[in-house]
Amino acid sequence: MSERITLYSAKLCPFAHRVEIALKESGLPYNRCEIDFFNKPEWYIEKVNPAGKVPAIAYGGPEVLDPTKPSPESTKLFESLVLVEFVNDLITLPSGGSTALFPQDPVLRAKARFFIESVCSKLVPAFFNVHLRGEHPSLILSAIDTLQDLLPEKEGFALGTQGGWSMADAAVLTVMARAEIGLENDLGVYDEGEGKKIWENVMNEEKYERFRRWFGDAKARKSFQETFDAEFVLENFKSRYPPLRAKRMEALKAASTA
Amino acid sequence: MSERITLYSAKLCPFAHRVEIALKESGLPYNRCEIDFFNKPEWYIEKVNPAGKVPAIAYGGPEVLDPTKPSPESTKLFESLVLVEFVNDLITLPSGGSTALFPQDPVLRAKARFFIESVCSKLVPAFFNVHLRGEHPSLILSAIDTLQDLLPEKEGFALGTQGGWSMADAAVLTVMARAEIGLENDLGVYDEGEGKKIWENVMNEEKYERFRRWFGDAKARKSFQETFDAEFVLENFKSRYPPLRAKRMEALKAASTA
Repeated sequence: MSERITLYSAKLCPFAHRVEIALKESGLPYNRCEIDFFNKPEWYIEKVNPAGKVPAIAYGGPEVLDPTKPSPESTKLFESLVLVEFVNDLITLPSGGSTALFPQDPVLRAKARFFIESVCSKLVPAFFNVHLRGEHPSLILSAIDTLQDLLPEKEGFALGTQGGWSMADAAVLTVMARAEIGLENDLGVYDEGEGKKIWENVMNEEKYERFRRWFGDAKARKSFQETFDAEFVLENFKSRYPPLRAKRMEALKAASTA
Repeated sequence: MSERITLYSAKLCPFAHRVEIALKESGLPYNRCEIDFFNKPEWYIEKVNPAGKVPAIAYGGPEVLDPTKPSPESTKLFESLVLVEFVNDLITLPSGGSTALFPQDPVLRAKARFFIESVCSKLVPAFFNVHLRGEHPSLILSAIDTLQDLLPEKEGFALGTQGGWSMADAAVLTVMARAEIGLENDLGVYDEGEGKKIWENVMNEEKYERFRRWFGDAKARKSFQETFDAEFVLENFKSRYPPLRAKRMEALKAASTA
């Protein structure tokens, strides 16, 4: 049905993770090749993605035993949400399929895409601005508010009981799961203690009860469990953020005494 | 096949225009309601889109003769690219259709979505930063470079001769057509004369020959012709930009003499 698929991914990357979940859910066979985010190999830029970003999919072409030597005959495709739609198209077009990542109903599909757009347009910049640029971790709360507003009132996933689980949930979850690891362990360049404090609020305040239920349900999904290496992400954050935070604190001190 | 559709749009808005082209191409019947961008009616925010943005679609529900009194029973859907996919889904799901806005081939669909994402992530901020914030009009050129890099070498639309016209072309065109009106008539808050100069380069330099061919072909499409009110956009730009430019010049002068 579908041709050969090689996914170029990185355990750390929430965007690549979306595509990995989509492939797991699809049941399509694929090879996975980990790309070192901080030290991108030259062959990757030359032969897969000139922009150097993950994720990428090499689709079709002859069998390639070594994914670091991709065939020029395979089509190279990029951008996480484009690839999620691509995987969905592979299993549902032209005939419609039973294991779709998005429901077949056009209205529910529109709601799924709107959910991703609305939540991620807040969550993604908040995640990076908090962890890498030192903005206050409470920035994450406005993304959680948006998420809660869009969820069905009592229970269920983004599309409600009618729609069930979809990639709308997963596309948000991959970012949120990394935010949790950062905040829970106070790993980021923001002021010490502030990440932990905000995450404790999220985990305890009544206001975020609906979020917590969704978060638990979404994380319990098998395709997420099978594709998320929390230990790897935590170890990376532990080695990466403390020196970045120290540097920021020094810069702030220098600026205030100048 | 599909239920009642009311499109809430604004002639000025390149994003709303995408959905209007999609509806024209789809052949689906729809009602159109113009929203005054600069003076959004309260009923619109209350009953259609709390975020106040166009475009929006009201889908389904009972017949409504006055679109300013939408039924609470219709589903309200938002975000231009979400709506483009929605219209495409309406005409192609569940059976696949012959007049799709995107081709049925998953690889070509991925390429269409990637084309929109790559070009518009440069073109849209450039358009607003140049026209409203006074950045240099040459910013538009990098979006044109990206567009040219992605086009098939000699001729044809974004997806090449294999794919033919698609919404990938239209989604970029609606923004570019407004940029043309601004630059060609030097209407924006940037320094006087700079818009005209850059657009003359685009229209004359050999380097942009491929862009010009695509631009001409894309503008010739009937669905674009039928939905674009260039006169309206020009008149709006003429009345809106000169006072904004004067204000910017005054601010710059005040800052330099302070």
